[in-house]
Amino acid sequence: MKRIESTKNPQVKQWKKLLTKKEREKTGLFIIEGFHLVEEALKSGVHIVEIVLDEKKEILSNWNVDNIPITLVTEEIMKAISDTETPQGIAAVCKQFTYEQIDWGKANVLLIDAVQDPGNVGTMIRTADAAGIDAVILGEGCVDLYNPKVIRATQGSLFHLPIIRGNLREWIQTLKEQQVHIYGTALENGEDYKQVEPKEPFALLVGNEGSGVNKDLLQLTTRNLYIPIYGKSESLNVAVATGILLYYLRG
Amino acid sequence: MKRIESTKNPQVKQWKKLLTKKEREKTGLFIIEGFHLVEEALKSGVHIVEIVLDEKKEILSNWNVDNIPITLVTEEIMKAISDTETPQGIAAVCKQFTYEQIDWGKANVLLIDAVQDPGNVGTMIRTADAAGIDAVILGEGCVDLYNPKVIRATQGSLFHLPIIRGNLREWIQTLKEQQVHIYGTALENGEDYKQVEPKEPFALLVGNEGSGVNKDLLQLTTRNLYIPIYGKSESLNVAVATGILLYYLRG
Repeated sequence: MKRIESTKNPQVKQWKKLLTKKEREKTGLFIIEGFHLVEEALKSGVHIVEIVLDEKKEILSNWNVDNIPITLVTEEIMKAISDTETPQGIAAVCKQFTYEQIDWGKANVLLIDAVQDPGNVGTMIRTADAAGIDAVILGEGCVDLYNPKVIRATQGSLFHLPIIRGNLREWIQTLKEQQVHIYGTALENGEDYKQVEPKEPFALLVGNEGSGVNKDLLQLTTRNLYIPIYGKSESLNVAVATGILLYYLRG
Repeated sequence: MKRIESTKNPQVKQWKKLLTKKEREKTGLFIIEGFHLVEEALKSGVHIVEIVLDEKKEILSNWNVDNIPITLVTEEIMKAISDTETPQGIAAVCKQFTYEQIDWGKANVLLIDAVQDPGNVGTMIRTADAAGIDAVILGEGCVDLYNPKVIRATQGSLFHLPIIRGNLREWIQTLKEQQVHIYGTALENGEDYKQVEPKEPFALLVGNEGSGVNKDLLQLTTRNLYIPIYGKSESLNVAVATGILLYYLRG
């Protein structure tokens, strides 16, 4: 096993760089942290390029890591390459996802437009997974899927279902051609979601924390829904709204 | 108007201390930040002891602050007493809430057991507000209501409905005596929530992010519900689960 002791080692700098979107896009790699996430990655079949392990920690005995290079490092190095204040002592470098063809005519899909808070996007992916959604499509204005805070908030769900980055306008057209019902979410000119009978397959389109879904996209949907506000708050958190609607629509 | 220029001024230290739970409990005060929250506080009738304003900022012209002492401070002081990295330039010291008697026999209530993440508790209060819930009761194991991160995540909803800190065992007894339906949430031995016909008034009891609701409390409920997980995630975020159930139960 390789062993690195200095935080100045070029390899350490390389890992650290993966905390930036620029480097992730350049290399097609991303980094995950913590025993739970690495275990989920191992189970998922994602390509793990290497594992970085605090020299005082151990790989779990039931993990199959025979073909994965492992580098032992100091606690200090682990901190340097970590996005958290108290790293668990394990990280893994993975290849970004590619997906095989999906039968879109049978899939329930979550479309996310310009949601920028990493905790929200991660929680939305976790929620889509829980609700049994078949794929998530992240529009161009969203926070980067491989942002460490997004990954953490998914609690492993990013390894459970296809998450695709793409142009939402094009995706809505594609799904419509497959007879998928496209439900937008809107505060104005929408229908109370409880008045709408759920139909599958569906795509739910949710949007930015402040401004909601882009108005041009709402023109392309089958129907636009809203969740009534009965009290005095101005809105719901976008991940909470996503949970309410996904669980309603899946019947 | 009073004016303070040094971060070493004892008044600055006093404000800063309100970022700690200990000081908040000692004084019965709490501090809020940002124009939106101060505006919500002004509208709500909460007792505002004083306003602290960045000398480069101005009070909004439609605010009625005639009877509230205002202290002008430097940007540096504003940063020192702020919980955020980029403070908006206004803060207010408020008295902690007291509530008049509520007719519990007619109230829909959210009971929160030992939820420790401030973002979750704040989002749950915001969600309860949106769903038109009449009161929130925070059990003893919850993060402090007046924690700045809780307040921020409520987006002002903490000023919209009564939030009471108390013993959940006692509260469940009180509500039961008033014929309120108590719905616990459980991963085991619960009923699929969609199989349960909602009845009002109700109290929804939700629990800790990792361990769920305390088992002893679940013995005291009318029924225990669960939200099915259709995919591969282990659970839902507690604020998302709260949203799904509150919007289902309120009919």
